[in-house]
Amino acid sequence: MSDQHIVASFDRDLEAIQALIMKMGGLVEAAILDAAKSLETRDEELAERVRRNDRAIDELEERVNEECARVLALRQPQATDLRTVLTVMKISANLERVGDYAKNMAKRTSVLVQMAPIEGTSGAMRRMAKAVETMMKDVLDSYIQRDAEMARDVRLRDQEVDQMYNALFRQFLTFMMEDPRNITACMHLHFIAKNIERMGDHVTSIAEQVIYLATGEMPDDSRPKDDRTPYDKTGAS
Amino acid sequence: MSDQHIVASFDRDLEAIQALIMKMGGLVEAAILDAAKSLETRDEELAERVRRNDRAIDELEERVNEECARVLALRQPQATDLRTVLTVMKISANLERVGDYAKNMAKRTSVLVQMAPIEGTSGAMRRMAKAVETMMKDVLDSYIQRDAEMARDVRLRDQEVDQMYNALFRQFLTFMMEDPRNITACMHLHFIAKNIERMGDHVTSIAEQVIYLATGEMPDDSRPKDDRTPYDKTGAS
Repeated sequence: MSDQHIVASFDRDLEAIQALIMKMGGLVEAAILDAAKSLETRDEELAERVRRNDRAIDELEERVNEECARVLALRQPQATDLRTVLTVMKISANLERVGDYAKNMAKRTSVLVQMAPIEGTSGAMRRMAKAVETMMKDVLDSYIQRDAEMARDVRLRDQEVDQMYNALFRQFLTFMMEDPRNITACMHLHFIAKNIERMGDHVTSIAEQVIYLATGEMPDDSRPKDDRTPYDKTGAS
Repeated sequence: MSDQHIVASFDRDLEAIQALIMKMGGLVEAAILDAAKSLETRDEELAERVRRNDRAIDELEERVNEECARVLALRQPQATDLRTVLTVMKISANLERVGDYAKNMAKRTSVLVQMAPIEGTSGAMRRMAKAVETMMKDVLDSYIQRDAEMARDVRLRDQEVDQMYNALFRQFLTFMMEDPRNITACMHLHFIAKNIERMGDHVTSIAEQVIYLATGEMPDDSRPKDDRTPYDKTGAS
């Protein structure tokens, strides 16, 4: 087999894997939006569907891992090609985690529908989920186009998600202090908000992988995000 | 270079990488215990040290990634050897995440020392952290010895950590309902408890990688753990 043949085969393999990643991305985007919608409209059936569909995302991740291992063994890629394969594995792990968070959101929906709604929070959560879903869409575009600039922009937008989360955290504290009967619902809602914020962190991590892929360098501050609940003492005794 | 030479070189490379993993493991174990201790004894200096030391864990993960990429490119391992390298990368990613959780715990300590202590919770958290740290120690042993049985045992013990977390969750709800002045502190403590529970999930994930490495098969229910806050309605309106 000539070198050219090997290169062409590698490119074909990689294209097939990228197609799996895009399919995963599509399912994950839908899961984010559906999970948020099921929460806002108190739609248990939709929540149940999100939970069931997570299986398909998990299976796609397994297939990506298998295909990547196969390509590594068969084509023995070097340099940039090797980097690409390892990066793809990381991206699919991130996508799978976001899918898990969406599933966890949906699980809590079934619990929350049994409690009195907390006014004004589910709309804010939906907006937060929408922001993360748009980031996800854009980061997958940046991946396909190897567009570091676009990935950098996605990375910056994660700060808006953090701000939305911080605002919600304060709102939950207020609701709980106003009326102890809100405490359990707010604890669950807070978890959901935190899960959405963590989804944003995973999208950011994908953006960093894209930057690495496009430029060969990780962005300066490349570590996974901190746990960023506001460290204030509002209402503390 | 003869085949035998290549094999010997691969083994040497792998040993060097495994030494990095064990070093990471040691630092992560210490971080878990120190973070819990700083919380219980309200020791801000120790908390600050945990935060600073996380950098070393992050750097080790980067080195593991670089070394693995180098080995893949240079030795082009096949079959079991390839599987081993890919597994090592996953294990180091899990260790790094546990380190991050310990750092986040330590960050919250600095906030919590400024609030009135919540009786009886920090001892329970220390016990939970200790359980996770012991699991971590054992899973690293099982990794070095490729001992699937030991890894299975670690995996089962994660259920105890989950039970400890569930008990704490209920305690926090009670404290918050008893006195709204406890709400902010309990929200932070709850986060810490959840972080410890998530550390247990990452240890479980390492155990699954060890089982895969030792037997060639993932355990039946191999998906990452769900978000397992009790889905009850205690105190809900």
